[in-house]
Amino acid sequence: MTGRVLRLRPVGFVRSPFKEPADLPPPAFAPPRFLASVTGEIVVSPEFAEGLAGLEAYSHIIVLFHFHRASGPKLTVVPPGESRPRGVFASRSPHRPNPLGMSVLKLLERDGRVLRVGGLDLVDGTPVLDIKPYTTRDRRSRIRTGRPGGR
Amino acid sequence: MTGRVLRLRPVGFVRSPFKEPADLPPPAFAPPRFLASVTGEIVVSPEFAEGLAGLEAYSHIIVLFHFHRASGPKLTVVPPGESRPRGVFASRSPHRPNPLGMSVLKLLERDGRVLRVGGLDLVDGTPVLDIKPYTTRDRRSRIRTGRPGGR
Repeated sequence: MTGRVLRLRPVGFVRSPFKEPADLPPPAFAPPRFLASVTGEIVVSPEFAEGLAGLEAYSHIIVLFHFHRASGPKLTVVPPGESRPRGVFASRSPHRPNPLGMSVLKLLERDGRVLRVGGLDLVDGTPVLDIKPYTTRDRRSRIRTGRPGGR
Repeated sequence: MTGRVLRLRPVGFVRSPFKEPADLPPPAFAPPRFLASVTGEIVVSPEFAEGLAGLEAYSHIIVLFHFHRASGPKLTVVPPGESRPRGVFASRSPHRPNPLGMSVLKLLERDGRVLRVGGLDLVDGTPVLDIKPYTTRDRRSRIRTGRPGGR
């Protein structure tokens, strides 16, 4: 079972003002209002365009993507601005055993197979693997987190 | 670029009281309190156990998993209890171009490489691809959804 391999391919790509990973401020330092103001696009490949029908009814989407610029996995990481190491599964680091990322973005508009999104925290050219509607099941009101400011 | 393939392998597996997909009530029909009461485990493989250090500081986790029982992709689906078709990206159907699922679960306890979780909506044996801490970035207070009840 453990050896089973899952093969995925992009369903679209991100267009972002952040051209390099270094352009993206670490969440620990980016003022929330700054990232909220960043807009960009997700361009879905023509073969998958039909799958977007009805998505415009939702205000927010979940985007699963490939951390395509990550250099490789680490099991222990030191998040930016911190001094103590933690397990990679207790962080949002890109250096994961499976380099999958997840972001909740604001869906500003759908124009055919182009989604205009807000709150963008992704690098230009990021391969998008899946798009899902964000629903009340994804929202937890009472949470406890491992870092100041709810990070 | 579009032909690029990403190869993933499980970092662990789910232990759930739901043995078959048919045992799992569709979200549209499951009383929220019922699913919230379902507990189970995520058992992480020994080689990745170190990556869990510090996760217990978080009350909730994001689990990315393989819809391993899905029969294949569809671009248009009719969600349970509905009559009109919608694009698969506007649904949480398992029949996705990339069969990736995402659930927010309550982390009840970490015992080494075993996570006891609540709110479990996954089938026994589900391959887990990634685990992330749930933070305030994942929480949106004002959302609009495409279905009654915030679904």
